[in-house]
Amino acid sequence: MKIDVFFTPACVDEGTLSDKVVVVVDVLRASTTMITALENGAKEIIPVAEIEEALKVATSRVAERPLLSGERHGKVIQGFDLGNSPEEFSASVVGEKSLVFCTTNGTRAIVKAKSAKVLVICGFLNISTVKEFILKPDNLEYNLSILCAGKENRFSLEDTICAGLLVDKLLTDKKGQAFLLSDSALAARILYEKFRGNELAALRDSEHGRYLAQLGFGKDIETAARIDASQALPILEDSAIRLQKVEKQKLKRVD
Amino acid sequence: MKIDVFFTPACVDEGTLSDKVVVVVDVLRASTTMITALENGAKEIIPVAEIEEALKVATSRVAERPLLSGERHGKVIQGFDLGNSPEEFSASVVGEKSLVFCTTNGTRAIVKAKSAKVLVICGFLNISTVKEFILKPDNLEYNLSILCAGKENRFSLEDTICAGLLVDKLLTDKKGQAFLLSDSALAARILYEKFRGNELAALRDSEHGRYLAQLGFGKDIETAARIDASQALPILEDSAIRLQKVEKQKLKRVD
Repeated sequence: MKIDVFFTPACVDEGTLSDKVVVVVDVLRASTTMITALENGAKEIIPVAEIEEALKVATSRVAERPLLSGERHGKVIQGFDLGNSPEEFSASVVGEKSLVFCTTNGTRAIVKAKSAKVLVICGFLNISTVKEFILKPDNLEYNLSILCAGKENRFSLEDTICAGLLVDKLLTDKKGQAFLLSDSALAARILYEKFRGNELAALRDSEHGRYLAQLGFGKDIETAARIDASQALPILEDSAIRLQKVEKQKLKRVD
Repeated sequence: MKIDVFFTPACVDEGTLSDKVVVVVDVLRASTTMITALENGAKEIIPVAEIEEALKVATSRVAERPLLSGERHGKVIQGFDLGNSPEEFSASVVGEKSLVFCTTNGTRAIVKAKSAKVLVICGFLNISTVKEFILKPDNLEYNLSILCAGKENRFSLEDTICAGLLVDKLLTDKKGQAFLLSDSALAARILYEKFRGNELAALRDSEHGRYLAQLGFGKDIETAARIDASQALPILEDSAIRLQKVEKQKLKRVD
């Protein structure tokens, strides 16, 4: 299996991911928020790239309007029900609900990768569960692309070290597999190694971590750094992200 | 001074670089080849992104047709005089000549950054000279963007560790300056530190290094890894790259 890491969606050409297992990483905060929402009982999350599309999807569902959620510049979008802080996505708010989710980087990355053979959402929260999933025989038939959401088409440290930890975990627990690393996958692993054991500090010191702390979202950074706090496996199927059924009975809630 | 590193030209939005000092890095091989050509007496290098443009520029200069040079997939372009191996750019071939230069990644990066306040070409060959240049008071008035050419809009290890060495040199010999690093600048420095003292091995093991070795360009990799073998300072002015005059008398030749 070849492992490749894209540091931003800008590096992805159309069609590149269509024959890949794709892991989308947006640690601060879309991955963390989606994992939390699904753990807390959200039925599905419909990822969209643009606000106009979010409104269109929401109004097209007359029987039960989904919750509009997402951010621009880290802040809730005007007229939306929820922003992009995992704190907001409690069981009482999102339980049994459909969500339309529109964020600056994370959902745009997902939309760019929607042609993937399999698309899974990953953060530090569920990283070992994602690693186990990739090592399933069905998935090992494909090459792996880890797509970091980055920040406005720029490199972000927090997504990269999360990607690097996933590479590290795959190479450690490889179950007899041979892995071939691209330059970027090698680099991500080296960068993770530099911050191993200091993940929370790395997230806090990252450009986006500092920005979120300024906005008052310091607690979200702590939430995002909780390695393996969840066993959720959010998978994109038919334009919506849902927890993979086989994993569902094993879940513990994150509140 | 803020220091930012772009791992590929795909991450650069139009206009981002217009108020920056920009250092373009394409270790394998455009930077290395341009430095060698100018050291060996080439009068100027006109960088272009596309083959058609190279032909147009060459035919428009009736009095003295410039040498057409460049590559696609690492190989000389059909009908061109020279490829992109520094070996080809000896004094007897390029002395006093104008070159039109068209490469897959390096010259495209230069063209994308042409709005920069100052644009300088950097490889391992001339890295300390570039560092000294950046630390001049005129240049310290601007922020610094190091633009890695990468490979077809993807991250490349060799350019990144060269960028990381430049960051490292600036922070070591900072002459009282305060530098603020972006996530990517921090990452590049960490990656350089991993390969410090093993630069040649890193270049050989990189994806593009392995590809070039397969094509028979192993010696070019050795040339590219010669840290500070040159004091050349290639600067883009009026659509052509020339050695900055003030440095010219100090040059030693690279053959």
